[in-house]
Amino acid sequence: MKNVKHAKCVKCGKIYEATPHLTNCTCGGILDIIYDYDYIKANLTKASLAARQDNSMWRYRELLPVEETTEAPPLRVGWSPLYEAKLLANELGIRKLYVKDDGLNPTASLKDRASSMAVAKAMEAGAKVIACSSTGNAASSLAGNAAAAGLKTYIFVPSRAPKGKVAQLMTFGATVISVQGSYEETFELSKQAIEKWGWYNRNAAINPYLSEGKKTVGLEIMEQLNWEVPDYIAISVGDGCTIAGLWKGLKDLYAIGFIDRLPRLISAQAEGCCPLNRAIETGEEWRPMEENTLADSIAVGVPRNADKALMAIRESNGLVVNVSDAEIMAAQKLLGRTCGVFGEPAGVTGAAGLKKLCQQGKIPADATVVSVVTGNGLKDVANAIAACGEPISIPGDMELLLKAFADNGIVVE
Amino acid sequence: MKNVKHAKCVKCGKIYEATPHLTNCTCGGILDIIYDYDYIKANLTKASLAARQDNSMWRYRELLPVEETTEAPPLRVGWSPLYEAKLLANELGIRKLYVKDDGLNPTASLKDRASSMAVAKAMEAGAKVIACSSTGNAASSLAGNAAAAGLKTYIFVPSRAPKGKVAQLMTFGATVISVQGSYEETFELSKQAIEKWGWYNRNAAINPYLSEGKKTVGLEIMEQLNWEVPDYIAISVGDGCTIAGLWKGLKDLYAIGFIDRLPRLISAQAEGCCPLNRAIETGEEWRPMEENTLADSIAVGVPRNADKALMAIRESNGLVVNVSDAEIMAAQKLLGRTCGVFGEPAGVTGAAGLKKLCQQGKIPADATVVSVVTGNGLKDVANAIAACGEPISIPGDMELLLKAFADNGIVVE
Repeated sequence: MKNVKHAKCVKCGKIYEATPHLTNCTCGGILDIIYDYDYIKANLTKASLAARQDNSMWRYRELLPVEETTEAPPLRVGWSPLYEAKLLANELGIRKLYVKDDGLNPTASLKDRASSMAVAKAMEAGAKVIACSSTGNAASSLAGNAAAAGLKTYIFVPSRAPKGKVAQLMTFGATVISVQGSYEETFELSKQAIEKWGWYNRNAAINPYLSEGKKTVGLEIMEQLNWEVPDYIAISVGDGCTIAGLWKGLKDLYAIGFIDRLPRLISAQAEGCCPLNRAIETGEEWRPMEENTLADSIAVGVPRNADKALMAIRESNGLVVNVSDAEIMAAQKLLGRTCGVFGEPAGVTGAAGLKKLCQQGKIPADATVVSVVTGNGLKDVANAIAACGEPISIPGDMELLLKAFADNGIVVE
Repeated sequence: MKNVKHAKCVKCGKIYEATPHLTNCTCGGILDIIYDYDYIKANLTKASLAARQDNSMWRYRELLPVEETTEAPPLRVGWSPLYEAKLLANELGIRKLYVKDDGLNPTASLKDRASSMAVAKAMEAGAKVIACSSTGNAASSLAGNAAAAGLKTYIFVPSRAPKGKVAQLMTFGATVISVQGSYEETFELSKQAIEKWGWYNRNAAINPYLSEGKKTVGLEIMEQLNWEVPDYIAISVGDGCTIAGLWKGLKDLYAIGFIDRLPRLISAQAEGCCPLNRAIETGEEWRPMEENTLADSIAVGVPRNADKALMAIRESNGLVVNVSDAEIMAAQKLLGRTCGVFGEPAGVTGAAGLKKLCQQGKIPADATVVSVVTGNGLKDVANAIAACGEPISIPGDMELLLKAFADNGIVVE
């Protein structure tokens, strides 16, 4: 890889050759992929990028840690739409708001970006089997992306994973182990099994390449905004890998001179599970928390990528905000009604956090903000139904329709 | 509209000016939009198209019946991926197979193409409210696309509509009327309500512009295949609008000289509800059938667009094939396992039909085939779970994992 120098531990600084099978540092720290930005600058320009027809995350190949000969995996991941959300901006009282709908990825979440990278690296490693533990989305995205590439998968999910995600896993032909316990226990079992059988490891905070896949969401946001840097980017935070990846992408673009400043990150967590935001607020070390929220994808009491996530929030002079489950479900309806975007609970937590910060007067009215929706609401229909209520139910009769409208206070325009 | 001549009844041939509010002919026949292909040829070339960065259905503006000044609606509809499915081609014993995953549209079905068109035409008509009846997907796509454009929606669904689709509707802020009865009864109630209140009508077989949105799936398939015409295109058929739209797109391309021959259509219906295929097989008029299949989107006993659909199948020298619910659910797993594509039951019915025709030796081994997946499996998780089974469920313990693998006959590679 001419564009990659090496991997470096974020904790102790130890350097590793960037081989496909890299996991954590011997000190336990997480590795970061270090690029040769001079090489990248010489090989990638805004104009060359603009001319590319590849509407997937692989359009940014010069910024991705793969061999030049490695083929992009089959599923078309990335280049999700960035919508200007005028109606919502108006409701929130900010000047300019964009919504990045990453629920429109092939398996319906941002995690496809990491899984596509995992499949590419597994191919480089000559692996035939990939494994991971996940609250659900990393799992279903790995299962789908691996299936398309002809790779076998072993997937560990906590038993609370919503049915939509489990249905995806089973349909994609994964061997699925539903662990009766927390995400932490699920992760530990997957770790032991991966060690025992030598599977390619797609656990996000263990495999340093996965953040590099996730960072493409940041690259895309900037290219879609024609390199005009927003003031804030709001995103939900669980394990910490996604916000860390987003930040890495933005810093890459800054390093190669594509953008001239960096936005502030808004880290949104659920009140019932916010160990990272608590660490920022208190200035103390992060401590485990219970996983007490219906936003299953970010119900992570022991965040595996705390180091990179906390660094990202701090470096960006970021804001942290915790929201209740009720605020999350209200944001789901708000995004649906004003943007036509249906996000899963964790997927809309960034928007819920943004709304709360706006209400608290913490976002200037002339700000430009991007809110990332990280997963599709169809993954967790039970919670959406509970939040939205049921439709009017009547036999097919006009008189009964008129009566139902009257009973429900519906005045037809 | 410089590219449109007029609308013409497919039954009696009567001509209408192509105004936005067009519905059926006075004779009850369905209208077809007639283009000025000379004008289009003079204004659209393969090269000009290839240079476009618009990765949505609106890249084909010269072939769409909208005013030049009409803005594309906000949601990014179309330009869904076309995957070469090598593993699946191998399993089915055909040379070249492509899968078009239209479940990756904004509200997760092909119907977004028609709804995006409906929103554009409603805007031209100055309407503030759109209404439709639907087995589910047309409804959720209308609700989402209209919400993003700031339009209000009234939606009529039969009570059997799966929860995923209802959750979408409610989240998008539609007024939803769940009709305790068949799709036919649902349609009739919506018709009366639309007449009473004068809402913009998005009922697919009534509004002749909607097929023109759907045809973009055919335009895309051909452009993505670099204008090399496949031998067959397989698609599921319910109301008849989708296969008719697909055919219209292909004929448009033939008329402007972008392709030099036309593929044969494969019309796949559920055994429990196949009035159109029965009409083709028997050579008789179509007659209503019961709606007896779990593939809810194509459970249409009284197809509203029979005329155009039957014409499309016959003109293309098409094949018809009926599949059981078990064959549909097997196709869902097959597509998941070999392609990483998760389709809803109706969405994979085309693939189920293709598989059956391959098994019957009706598709030559050297054929090139495209199979369209019309909707996302996340819309109907209950059926997927029923078909795929449950994962292995254990506490987080390595010994129990080994035992579970042994009990389930899983041999780790």
